[in-house]
Amino acid sequence: MMAQQQHAHPYVPRTLELPGFVPPSFSSPFLFGVYGAASLLLVVLTWSISKRHAHLNKVERLLLCWWWFTGLTHVILEGYFVFTPDFYKKQSNFLADVWKEYSKGDSRYAARDMAVISVEGITAVLAGPASLLAVYSIIARRPYQHPLQLIISVGQLYGDAVYFITYFFGGTEHRLPGLTYFWLYIVFMNGIWVVIPSIIAIRSWNKIIHAFTKQKET
Amino acid sequence: MMAQQQHAHPYVPRTLELPGFVPPSFSSPFLFGVYGAASLLLVVLTWSISKRHAHLNKVERLLLCWWWFTGLTHVILEGYFVFTPDFYKKQSNFLADVWKEYSKGDSRYAARDMAVISVEGITAVLAGPASLLAVYSIIARRPYQHPLQLIISVGQLYGDAVYFITYFFGGTEHRLPGLTYFWLYIVFMNGIWVVIPSIIAIRSWNKIIHAFTKQKET
Repeated sequence: MMAQQQHAHPYVPRTLELPGFVPPSFSSPFLFGVYGAASLLLVVLTWSISKRHAHLNKVERLLLCWWWFTGLTHVILEGYFVFTPDFYKKQSNFLADVWKEYSKGDSRYAARDMAVISVEGITAVLAGPASLLAVYSIIARRPYQHPLQLIISVGQLYGDAVYFITYFFGGTEHRLPGLTYFWLYIVFMNGIWVVIPSIIAIRSWNKIIHAFTKQKET
Repeated sequence: MMAQQQHAHPYVPRTLELPGFVPPSFSSPFLFGVYGAASLLLVVLTWSISKRHAHLNKVERLLLCWWWFTGLTHVILEGYFVFTPDFYKKQSNFLADVWKEYSKGDSRYAARDMAVISVEGITAVLAGPASLLAVYSIIARRPYQHPLQLIISVGQLYGDAVYFITYFFGGTEHRLPGLTYFWLYIVFMNGIWVVIPSIIAIRSWNKIIHAFTKQKET
């Protein structure tokens, strides 16, 4: 019968201490819905507007959509996480609630696990702005667009590797039971950043090889 | 007065448990001496033998020295660490003793910290063989030599970033007191893999930009 009842957090392991935890205000369908809708809007707008650039082909326009989406996700969503160590105490805050929700799949986010922080820090501070630079480099047809996209994609894959290795070998005690948390949060959401960077890295690699082969011929 | 006295490990934090720890057989000057001499021998041999390849300039010959050195360090030294979780129990083993010694500067190696394992795993399994492929690509003048060197170098820098962020923000409770451990083990030894990959990444980047600029002209 405590006078001031603390909110118990929903995460595992139960030994994790999060004093001052405030339960999320938004439901997980709402969080996913807003993030999904905002991302879709961004993609549709980018696709439509980029049509005006007659020099861009469809692949390049798709790349613009990706770099806008991943850049803003890195800077806003992951940037918020990195620079808000006490996000679990925030009230009625959309970005905080995204991370409160994700922590159900991986409580290392709430626990400020250093492997997670280092990867998210590099992603938010370096990969984020670099992705937005990639948008510019494609539109302006800069010669550095391909090595830049290659570097960011390889960096994203490196971050995935650190994330998945530490997650799977560090034990699954950080994840609540339930298929949703595993397949939707861990596999699907992170899988996006495995599949697309792999495709882009291969494309940029091929573009670079092509340039060297041409250079050799002349 | 225990009947079977366990060897106490020398690392901090003292709460770290390493049952079955066997003290190193080799002194730290010996370990550094052998690693340094073997590396120097490798560099001198590579430099001398590469002279026979008349098409290689001095920078390319230096790059061969680096990729041999870093490739073998990744595969042998770091590969041993990654696949020998109980290295601290090994007796009279040079490679085990290198990691017993390094653990004085960073006991997370003995403790199997997941951030360290993930970076060392990626380095040993991917960057190591890729570095040896870089040796071949330079000698054989393959067009992929520059994107390959760029990718490996960026990967090494990403690994450094994860290592240093987790080290400095995870607290320095893993390091024994003494200037040697900080400046020689942490700063100097890891610094080699910050400075040289940075230089190579910039060079490869410039080579790639040059190829695209030439391609544009023709």
